[in-house]
Amino acid sequence: MLKAYIDVTLKKSILDPQGTAVKEGLSKLGFEVETVRIGKHIEVTLNDMNRENAEKLIDEMCLKLLINPEIEVYSYRIEEE
Amino acid sequence: MLKAYIDVTLKKSILDPQGTAVKEGLSKLGFEVETVRIGKHIEVTLNDMNRENAEKLIDEMCLKLLINPEIEVYSYRIEEE
Repeated sequence: MLKAYIDVTLKKSILDPQGTAVKEGLSKLGFEVETVRIGKHIEVTLNDMNRENAEKLIDEMCLKLLINPEIEVYSYRIEEE
Repeated sequence: MLKAYIDVTLKKSILDPQGTAVKEGLSKLGFEVETVRIGKHIEVTLNDMNRENAEKLIDEMCLKLLINPEIEVYSYRIEEE
């Protein structure tokens, strides 16, 4: 069975207030970092299919439901479970 | 400069209502999948340091702020920017 690990992140041009808040939180705890950006991590276990079909399916699912293509981009890897 | 890509996911024993909702949403669009689990994806750009220190720092940051160790687990990779 194949499992897709999808990362959804805001485009670089889009402000990320949640990331800024986390950066400030880290700073208050003494952790100084350059930048923090927050996105979504989605794990999808697929019904039985080959890798080529899985890639097509994941692309379709991302563009139709999982991401907002105006402000987000996605990347993924597919692994055998 | 090093950048950490951190994935935070709910432990397997913890219910994920958001994932269930997304699975149902996918199903309504005609995408049948086995399971969907939703987590956070966090990208942290670090000040100048070596990889060993970076790993220590990321572990500390995760346990002190970024995750809730009662219900979440994390994994990460560190890459040269």
